[in-house]
Amino acid sequence: MSTIPAYAAASATSPLAPATIERRDPGLRDVQIDILYCGVCHSDIHQVRDEWGGSIFPMVPGHEIVGRVSAVGGEVTKYAVGDAVGVGCFVDSCRTCPQCEAGLEQYCDEGMTATYNARERGTGVPTQGGYSTRIVVDQDYVLRIPEGMPLDAAAPLLCAGITTYSPLRYFKAKAGDKVAVVGLGGLGHMAVKLAAAMDCEVTVLSTTEAKRKDASALGAHDFAATGDGKVFKSHAGRFDLVLDTVSARHDYNAYLGLLKVGGTMVLLGIPEPAAISAFPLVARRRSLAGSMIGGIAETQEMLDFCAEHGIAADIERIDIDAINDAYERMLRNDVRYRFVIDIASLKADT
Amino acid sequence: MSTIPAYAAASATSPLAPATIERRDPGLRDVQIDILYCGVCHSDIHQVRDEWGGSIFPMVPGHEIVGRVSAVGGEVTKYAVGDAVGVGCFVDSCRTCPQCEAGLEQYCDEGMTATYNARERGTGVPTQGGYSTRIVVDQDYVLRIPEGMPLDAAAPLLCAGITTYSPLRYFKAKAGDKVAVVGLGGLGHMAVKLAAAMDCEVTVLSTTEAKRKDASALGAHDFAATGDGKVFKSHAGRFDLVLDTVSARHDYNAYLGLLKVGGTMVLLGIPEPAAISAFPLVARRRSLAGSMIGGIAETQEMLDFCAEHGIAADIERIDIDAINDAYERMLRNDVRYRFVIDIASLKADT
Repeated sequence: MSTIPAYAAASATSPLAPATIERRDPGLRDVQIDILYCGVCHSDIHQVRDEWGGSIFPMVPGHEIVGRVSAVGGEVTKYAVGDAVGVGCFVDSCRTCPQCEAGLEQYCDEGMTATYNARERGTGVPTQGGYSTRIVVDQDYVLRIPEGMPLDAAAPLLCAGITTYSPLRYFKAKAGDKVAVVGLGGLGHMAVKLAAAMDCEVTVLSTTEAKRKDASALGAHDFAATGDGKVFKSHAGRFDLVLDTVSARHDYNAYLGLLKVGGTMVLLGIPEPAAISAFPLVARRRSLAGSMIGGIAETQEMLDFCAEHGIAADIERIDIDAINDAYERMLRNDVRYRFVIDIASLKADT
Repeated sequence: MSTIPAYAAASATSPLAPATIERRDPGLRDVQIDILYCGVCHSDIHQVRDEWGGSIFPMVPGHEIVGRVSAVGGEVTKYAVGDAVGVGCFVDSCRTCPQCEAGLEQYCDEGMTATYNARERGTGVPTQGGYSTRIVVDQDYVLRIPEGMPLDAAAPLLCAGITTYSPLRYFKAKAGDKVAVVGLGGLGHMAVKLAAAMDCEVTVLSTTEAKRKDASALGAHDFAATGDGKVFKSHAGRFDLVLDTVSARHDYNAYLGLLKVGGTMVLLGIPEPAAISAFPLVARRRSLAGSMIGGIAETQEMLDFCAEHGIAADIERIDIDAINDAYERMLRNDVRYRFVIDIASLKADT
C-alpha cells in the first residue's frame, strides 16, 4: 500500500482540496503508474457535484490519465517500467459477458468499473482517479501512449478522443463523407480533428460565430452558426453523419433534418429528454443513435491513429491548485479545448 | 381516356360513396390494369379525413392494388396483357436523384408521386387509387405478382408487406436474431410472418393478452403483454431489432431498453412526438430509426420472397359497399388482419 497526494472533493458541495489516498501495491497483473498529466472532463464536474446521483465521497476525479510505469506485477507482460501509458474511463469489467469478449468493455453487462466514483470488483473499495500522483491498474485496462506523442496533449484522448473516434468508426465514416460536429468543446474539437484525418468533409455547427476561425484551424471545411436557425434550411439533407456533442437540451428534430437519407445522428452527451418526432426518421430512413467512449482495443487503435496522423488535443495546462477555477471556466465554455493538470504541481505541493 | 367506377370521398367529412373517375389511355410505357383487389390501409383513413393536412378531394384511396394487365403501351417490355400485377404506394418519382438511382424511389428528393392524394408529375392531375376498377401506371412502377400467390391476400403485401420487409433487410435481420414486433395489426402481422420466414426468433409485444394465440399462429415464438409494464424488466436487453408498428403515442424509452447493445428500434408509424432520453441510446449504443415502405426493386424482391415462403396477408374480404363500416372497425382494431376490397363488387354495382 502506498499513501499518495491527491485532490479530492469531500462532499457534493465541497471544492476540490488537497488530500491523501492509498493505492494498492501492484498485484501479479497490475501496472503501477506514476501520473504525469490528467485531463479535466466535464463529467468530472457532474460527478463531484453529484449531479448524476450516487456519487461516492471523498472523490478524486480524473479519467484522462497519462504517466509512466513505475512498477509491474510478476505476471505483467504488456508493459515495463518506464513505459509511457494511459488510463481512460474504466479500470475493470466482468471480462466474460458478450461485450467484454467483443472488446466492448464500456458496455459490460455488469457495468464497467469506472476509474473513479465506482467500487473495485471484489473488494468494493472506492476507485479514485487521476487528480493524484499514482494509480495501479490491471495491465489489460492500460493503454500504450505511442512514441513521440506529447504526453500532456495525449491525456484528453483517453476520453474525449475515444468518445468521438468510436462512433466515427462504428458508423463507418469514410473519405468524402459529410460529417457535422455539433458543439465545439472538448469532444467537438477532437471530433473535428479525427473526422478530418479520416478525410471526411467536416462542418462545425456552433451556436454563434465565435468559433468559426477555430473550427477552420482544427481542420473543419465548413462552419455554420445555428443561433438563427437558417442552417436547418440551408444544410438540410446534407450530412451522412452528425456527431452531437451537446449536453444541454436541444431540438433533435431540427438536427435530424440535416441528415441525408439513411444518415445517422449520434448523441455523445446525455441531455435532458427532448421530444422526438417520428417523421424525420421515417420519411428519410434516418437514425438517432448514441455512443459511449470505446473499448480498450479501440482506444489503443485511436491512440495509434492519432500518432500516425500527428493528432492530439488542444490543451491548456494548469497546476492542480487552479482546478476549482478551471471548473468555473468550463461551465462558461471558456477553455480551448481541454484543461490538463500538470501532476508535477501536485507532487511539488506536498 | 376511360371513365370508370370508383368509391370516392367528396370531402374530409364525407363518407366514401360511388363516383366515376377518368383514367388516361395507356401511353407508350404505360400498363393498364383492371383491378381485382385493393387492400385497406390505415393511412387511407388518415388521408380521406385530411388528418395529415393537404388532402386533395374528391379522393379515391387505395394503394394495395392487385389486378390483371388489360392493355399495354407500345414500348412496354416488362408486362403483357393477362399478367397478374400489383401497384403499391407510389406510381412515379423523379428517376434521377441519388435515391431513385439507388432503387429507393420512396425517398425521392422531389417526393414520390403517391398512388392517390398526389398530383401526377408534369400534368398536375390528381392521382386516384385502387378503390376503382382500373389504373394506368408506368411499367417501371408496376410489380409482378408471383405465380400461384392468392391475388386477394397478395394485395396488402404492396404496403404492409414491404413496410415491414424493408427494415428487416436494411437492418440486417438474420437467422437466430431476436426480433420484437410491437403491435399486432396489419403491419405487425406481416412483420411476424416475414421475420419468422427469415428464421428470426420473433416476439410479439401487444398491449393485452388478447392476441397471444394469433401471434403464435402467425409464427411468433414468444408473446408478451405490455400493459402492466413487467416485460420492460423481464425482456430488458434481449432484442437485436424492434419493429415498432404502433401509430399512437408511446414511450420510446421503455422499448429502447429492450434492445441489446447495438440494437435498433425502427419506427414504421408516425406517432405524435414523444420525449426521448439519451441514456438508453448512449449507454448501450442503441439506435432509434425510421423506415418507410420500400423501393420498386425491393418490393418485387419481397413479393418473390413471400411466394417462395408461402406467405401472404391474413385478410377479410369485403364488398366495396362495406368500406365505411370497415374503417370504423379498423379504428377499433377489429380486423384480422387486413381488409381487402373485392373490386368485382364495384363492377357489379355499376
